[in-house]
Amino acid sequence: MSELLTERSGRVAAARKLTRRAGRDAAGAFLAEGRQAVSEALATAPDDVREVFATEAAAAAHRDLLAGTTVPVRLVTERAVAGLSETVTPQGLVAVCALRDMPADRLTADPPALAVGLAGLADPGNAGTVLRTADACGAGAVVFGAGSADPYGGKAVRSSAGSLFHVDVVRGAPLEPLVAGLQARGVTVLAADGGGEAALDELGDALAGPVLWLFGNEARGVPPELAAAADARVRIPMRGRAESLNLAAAAAICLYATQLAQG
Amino acid sequence: MSELLTERSGRVAAARKLTRRAGRDAAGAFLAEGRQAVSEALATAPDDVREVFATEAAAAAHRDLLAGTTVPVRLVTERAVAGLSETVTPQGLVAVCALRDMPADRLTADPPALAVGLAGLADPGNAGTVLRTADACGAGAVVFGAGSADPYGGKAVRSSAGSLFHVDVVRGAPLEPLVAGLQARGVTVLAADGGGEAALDELGDALAGPVLWLFGNEARGVPPELAAAADARVRIPMRGRAESLNLAAAAAICLYATQLAQG
Repeated sequence: MSELLTERSGRVAAARKLTRRAGRDAAGAFLAEGRQAVSEALATAPDDVREVFATEAAAAAHRDLLAGTTVPVRLVTERAVAGLSETVTPQGLVAVCALRDMPADRLTADPPALAVGLAGLADPGNAGTVLRTADACGAGAVVFGAGSADPYGGKAVRSSAGSLFHVDVVRGAPLEPLVAGLQARGVTVLAADGGGEAALDELGDALAGPVLWLFGNEARGVPPELAAAADARVRIPMRGRAESLNLAAAAAICLYATQLAQG
Repeated sequence: MSELLTERSGRVAAARKLTRRAGRDAAGAFLAEGRQAVSEALATAPDDVREVFATEAAAAAHRDLLAGTTVPVRLVTERAVAGLSETVTPQGLVAVCALRDMPADRLTADPPALAVGLAGLADPGNAGTVLRTADACGAGAVVFGAGSADPYGGKAVRSSAGSLFHVDVVRGAPLEPLVAGLQARGVTVLAADGGGEAALDELGDALAGPVLWLFGNEARGVPPELAAAADARVRIPMRGRAESLNLAAAAAICLYATQLAQG
């Protein structure tokens, strides 16, 4: 019977540093909490899972998940696991996973049919939700441009609901050269913009080929110089009285429309 | 020059009770914070605005908004207004507005082309976001069934971004009789359901006539007995690997598809 690690153990203290962005970047790792995230991590990228922390109760509850893995499982106290969690009710199960960053030039070398670029998206919940929606709609990659929320933060990982392990993630890449590089490869670049000159439902064939969608900051939208580099600035037609849509809602509409058009 | 009200004044203490649901229901009023919400309240329902609290700085910054109104504007301290806010950085401007509840039978008497029913939607941010999206897509009413988040709570009002003042709100009505009543009037009732037998992109004419969309709890979906009463249980086809969509994202896709079909 192995000893329970407390919050004072070196391993737990090292993992706790991953609750901060600087700690994640220094260690090249992040925390995936809860059954869904740990399960996706073990299923899709087992070699990238460094260790799993579990309370005795969680280890028993998720024995099916943990029994088959060669990843080290460390039993920890409730208090230790609470220090690794950003939620009010920790699930008692946290995996330490290697960051999944992909270099931007791999994206331009082999563009997927659908990709997403985030320019200054600030809210971690929105970051995770857009990642989840992009995954659902078949996107191959999501680029988190400089100034965007970190997809590896606790709230973003939780909001992504496992999709972080399905989609290629590019972080911190400047978006302008990426846009130019993708356009050179025949990708249509569309900037979501409430005041855009093109209506989503009138884009026609533009959505059928490979597409990069750009979504911006929740308050300020896509930066003008970046939007100007897009092939079109696209608005979602609204027959109601709302001035605008929530960013994650707008992204869902644009990405689903693209999935439909791409057949 | 009027005296600044502090957090100990009777008016401010009474308004502070509106930060809790029981207090709102007892007083028949709620708080709308920030320029956008106060502006929408004064523009769309001035007779329902009982008073506005503003710091001296906010009163000066929003003089254009407050100058033309006959609603009493009370100058308050920063600390007093902070007690009326759920945000980390209060905007210094809060309106006390009468609840906007509409009886459910008015909805069945004259059904709009598009309405939304929420069955146990738990998250206040999702509640406000769905209200905002419903407004954008031209919905006439949103019904918050028993057990759903309160659309008049601070986070929901903020997420609705003013749409609370554009759309009819029905609260606490049992959804089963409402579904039956609307079906009797020729409304097609659709339950959003990740395992639904109908695909959203294959509904055809069902979306073109009057529609009530049902969305459920974030984790459990629409209750089975309610979903069974719908004309169809509808899934959003997903070509990617995500198991499901975020609720507000799914609602955005369904409501936008309906707007498009209804022309």
